[in-house]
Amino acid sequence: MSEKIISEEIIDPSETNLKALFLGDKGENVDIYKNIMNRMIDEHVGWRQNYMPQDLPVITPQDRREESFQATVDNMNSVFNVLSSRLRTDSLPWHTAGRFWGHMNSETLMPSIIAYNTAMLWNGNNVAYESSPATSKMEEEVGQDLSALMGYGDKGWGHIACDGSIANLEGIWYARNFKSLPLAIKEVVPAAVEGKTEWELLNMSTEEILDVLDENQDHMDEIKERSARSGKNLEKLGKWIVPQTKHYSWLKSADIIGVGLDQVIACDVDNEYRMDVDALEKLIRELAAEETPVLGVVAVVGSTEEGQIDRVDKIVALREKLAAEGIYFYIHVDAAYGGYARSIFLDENSNFIPYDEIQAAYEENGVFQGENHWLTPEVHASFKAIESCESVTIDPHKMGYVPYSAGGVVIKDVRMRDVISYFATYVFKKGADIPALLGAYILEGSKAGATAAAVWTAHKILPLNVKGFGKLIGASIEGAFRFYNFIDGLEFQVGDKTIVMNALTRPDFNMVDYVFNEKGNTDLKVMNDLNEEFYQYASYAKGGTYHNEFITSHTDFAVPDYGDSPFPFVEGLGFSRAEWDKEQKVTILRAACMSPYAHDEKVFAEYSAKIKKAIQEKLEAIYNEK
Amino acid sequence: MSEKIISEEIIDPSETNLKALFLGDKGENVDIYKNIMNRMIDEHVGWRQNYMPQDLPVITPQDRREESFQATVDNMNSVFNVLSSRLRTDSLPWHTAGRFWGHMNSETLMPSIIAYNTAMLWNGNNVAYESSPATSKMEEEVGQDLSALMGYGDKGWGHIACDGSIANLEGIWYARNFKSLPLAIKEVVPAAVEGKTEWELLNMSTEEILDVLDENQDHMDEIKERSARSGKNLEKLGKWIVPQTKHYSWLKSADIIGVGLDQVIACDVDNEYRMDVDALEKLIRELAAEETPVLGVVAVVGSTEEGQIDRVDKIVALREKLAAEGIYFYIHVDAAYGGYARSIFLDENSNFIPYDEIQAAYEENGVFQGENHWLTPEVHASFKAIESCESVTIDPHKMGYVPYSAGGVVIKDVRMRDVISYFATYVFKKGADIPALLGAYILEGSKAGATAAAVWTAHKILPLNVKGFGKLIGASIEGAFRFYNFIDGLEFQVGDKTIVMNALTRPDFNMVDYVFNEKGNTDLKVMNDLNEEFYQYASYAKGGTYHNEFITSHTDFAVPDYGDSPFPFVEGLGFSRAEWDKEQKVTILRAACMSPYAHDEKVFAEYSAKIKKAIQEKLEAIYNEK
Repeated sequence: MSEKIISEEIIDPSETNLKALFLGDKGENVDIYKNIMNRMIDEHVGWRQNYMPQDLPVITPQDRREESFQATVDNMNSVFNVLSSRLRTDSLPWHTAGRFWGHMNSETLMPSIIAYNTAMLWNGNNVAYESSPATSKMEEEVGQDLSALMGYGDKGWGHIACDGSIANLEGIWYARNFKSLPLAIKEVVPAAVEGKTEWELLNMSTEEILDVLDENQDHMDEIKERSARSGKNLEKLGKWIVPQTKHYSWLKSADIIGVGLDQVIACDVDNEYRMDVDALEKLIRELAAEETPVLGVVAVVGSTEEGQIDRVDKIVALREKLAAEGIYFYIHVDAAYGGYARSIFLDENSNFIPYDEIQAAYEENGVFQGENHWLTPEVHASFKAIESCESVTIDPHKMGYVPYSAGGVVIKDVRMRDVISYFATYVFKKGADIPALLGAYILEGSKAGATAAAVWTAHKILPLNVKGFGKLIGASIEGAFRFYNFIDGLEFQVGDKTIVMNALTRPDFNMVDYVFNEKGNTDLKVMNDLNEEFYQYASYAKGGTYHNEFITSHTDFAVPDYGDSPFPFVEGLGFSRAEWDKEQKVTILRAACMSPYAHDEKVFAEYSAKIKKAIQEKLEAIYNEK
Repeated sequence: MSEKIISEEIIDPSETNLKALFLGDKGENVDIYKNIMNRMIDEHVGWRQNYMPQDLPVITPQDRREESFQATVDNMNSVFNVLSSRLRTDSLPWHTAGRFWGHMNSETLMPSIIAYNTAMLWNGNNVAYESSPATSKMEEEVGQDLSALMGYGDKGWGHIACDGSIANLEGIWYARNFKSLPLAIKEVVPAAVEGKTEWELLNMSTEEILDVLDENQDHMDEIKERSARSGKNLEKLGKWIVPQTKHYSWLKSADIIGVGLDQVIACDVDNEYRMDVDALEKLIRELAAEETPVLGVVAVVGSTEEGQIDRVDKIVALREKLAAEGIYFYIHVDAAYGGYARSIFLDENSNFIPYDEIQAAYEENGVFQGENHWLTPEVHASFKAIESCESVTIDPHKMGYVPYSAGGVVIKDVRMRDVISYFATYVFKKGADIPALLGAYILEGSKAGATAAAVWTAHKILPLNVKGFGKLIGASIEGAFRFYNFIDGLEFQVGDKTIVMNALTRPDFNMVDYVFNEKGNTDLKVMNDLNEEFYQYASYAKGGTYHNEFITSHTDFAVPDYGDSPFPFVEGLGFSRAEWDKEQKVTILRAACMSPYAHDEKVFAEYSAKIKKAIQEKLEAIYNEK
């Protein structure tokens, strides 16, 4: 690219005012939205007009006067009446500043919406560079951003995926193929792994494997042919360990990838819903004792149901300890939800800020309005340790505040991608900086260039560090802690009953789980029913969400998935072990706190009063119905 | 839903004027685009304002006057300058009415672009009904449309996928799990398959399996647990047969699903690049002789490189014949490219129009401007037979003229989806018409509701029959045949050389492959180099596409993938067998003819003169360089 006098680097993120980045809960910034949007359309149309200006428009003024043309436009307008009516009737008001405390959604970044709409007019397909040079470059840059975010720097590589489930599937695809490579190497170039037993082969580290491959590039194709992609040796690769809080997508991905559900082990979680690393060690040692390898371990950074952060640092430390005993496992981090939050720990040069310097960085950059109630050394260490794991799932459509659907995958070492890659006959060149055929390196094929434009724009406006995205993440965490402190212990009087709200746990991130219970109630079923009914009143279930003054989401923690991990919480509320054993589940209400406005003290004060009133009304309706 | 006085059914598709449905190659309809777009934005903002009108806007006029707010807006505008510049510098001019004859792309439907932009403002997530009631309903309706399109009617089911690769992966996931079910049934309820040998179990038809499952619903979970999802029996399931023209995504999906590349067999194609069904029969009989089952066969409707249509009818007939001998295989149709073309065979009630009535239907609906040069009884029969196959991939972002990324999967029998499904703990209700958690029934998780809105709108405006989408498909096919007739045999004089253009084959659909060759040249390498060089001049490779007056794409047919199937074409151009054996490949230029304008006789006449001149100039540049 030629040197530019007008540089692309124009952004001083310390100036960023988050309120200018959203359409606004009441559409306050619609003028800005339309202004930029219409400018982008004009610039696109200008481009069309000036591509071969000697070509006259193919749709003539006479065409446009034809009756059928007008009829078609009328039909289009009628269809849009239906579309608009349906969307307005049945959509969820994520955009509200303080009444929606449910799913992982909120307003998304206005510039990302506009960027998507703009790029869609060009409709590039990032499957191949030649069908989308502009947006393929943006995706490559986004990948570099995400690699830096994870601490992988120039050595790593990332790309956009359609969602977190597919990104997680790609993670287990990497793990499966890597675990199988030493067996393939042994078949093709036995000298390269001479003297290793099968157990040793199945416990080679990813780095060792990459080094052996580097030395045997001439045999790369043969080795790949005999890796797990052949369909062989899948049953030898060992167990895939996920936390007990596992999202169903982890079962699905083990199914799809052919490893199989029989190889999935759910590791216990502790009382804070984080993977119990002592239990993990015990499990791995038991498996090792019977020479069963561990294919890999999934660490979750932001669990779907609790928003909790696994102790990635402890899992990495365990791996180091066991490596000395000849045991190795791949680590994939499912940071679909929490991944962007790593930006709250990075300085402008993408360096991870030490714990004892971070408060100063937050103060300097105005990350929190009030005190920092959130950060603990454990959470800090967990985020840091992602840099030692092989691959990460990160969804721009969650904490990246980009519209659906935009997931992401990051790998620690760009060489890893060659192990899973395919080349089609119509792709001539390989080895360029940007893959000529991205589809040969990832699970997916055709993909919208517009998604890359939307994520790229978000990253340009909010760089992935404490000055940029960190401020937005900080706002959401601060909003979550305001909500947490507000509801935990909050009491409501309904007739002669006192209803108390209790938070499940202190949040590691920005999700607050909670329950309602009658004071003095010792019947777990009564509590579960109350929360289920509350959900009915606080969701689409009771007919529409548009007139609903408080909306939340819910989940069940049941023994088949969670084991007894919820019992300490249930016990703390006064229920007996016998009650737990009888009910086998606890119904939980769940609030992903993503509003970019609710961190503000005044805004929260106003809305907390309103939602308190709304909750009171819902509880009264529930008890009056009884 | 309550009865409506203003019905949603307002569309008379016979009125449809295709020129009103696109932005226009020169942006001729930008007034309509902006008009509807801005109306949709206003209706969205009105909705935000009127959700709890008692809540005051959180972004105040004072906020908007702050310096940091203005600075942020300025920054945003600067970023959009970069975005627009980059898109205008490096994007491809798909939109041109007649200069782009390359990738599978063109203008997309204006109403789909607007619908996407509109729905994105609500940002529903179709992974779960509760996070997107409006767009989940639209996706369900789109699925019904696609099911009717394939001839599956109410018994089938479909959904939107992120792309064709993932849809194909879902197809092989279905095939793998179904093939494994009888073995699982035998373990769980042996009486249900009493007396069947393993060979017989592995050759049960999908319908038989579904019937057995229906009778054993109580054991469904146990049976599923022991199906291929467990990781067991994968090596027993047999061979996965794809045509030799196989897209690399078929290798990738066999890899990912754990069946493995070693189980993939490429079946020969005939001279028209369709699967050779005699060769297929021979292959299956050889496998059966050694008791190797066939997991499934992929029939391609619109091959990626040639646009050819496999003889699905013959493959289905072969299956019926072999079934009498106790041999059964699953059939997945990869109609990612050609699937929407089935609409050109359907009447308003989604009935397949018999061959002897179809010409009248085309004339009645003005499907072709000129004569119907295209349709053969073979192609007609191939499309009809899709109704007998188990599953289909169909991409709205290809012949559905919807922006990326929108793929699709259709299954013949809705009961099939239960076999691959998962339920998460937080989903209470199952069995509703619309799945409460779509993510538990498909490969993907989070997915943009906006995609559903875009496809839904396309289907509302152009129903999937000969009166709606059929007309647009017809326009593209007619354009392709104009191009084919124009270029086949076209000669250019450069100095003392005569260069001739030759089409690879008569198109089954709307793709035209072709080569340039010097008259009298018998050196295959010389021809391959000429076409490679031509591609360089007719693509982004020689620096930008904006000033390029003719753009095309290219591919290689090489022995490792294609075997000797290209030899008859090469021989017909005057090259010897020895030349073919030496070069082992032929470089092909490739034009997916998707312009919605080039079918018009006058438009084509104007552009064909222009591209002839552009080709002449490119050839001169190539020979002058030598």
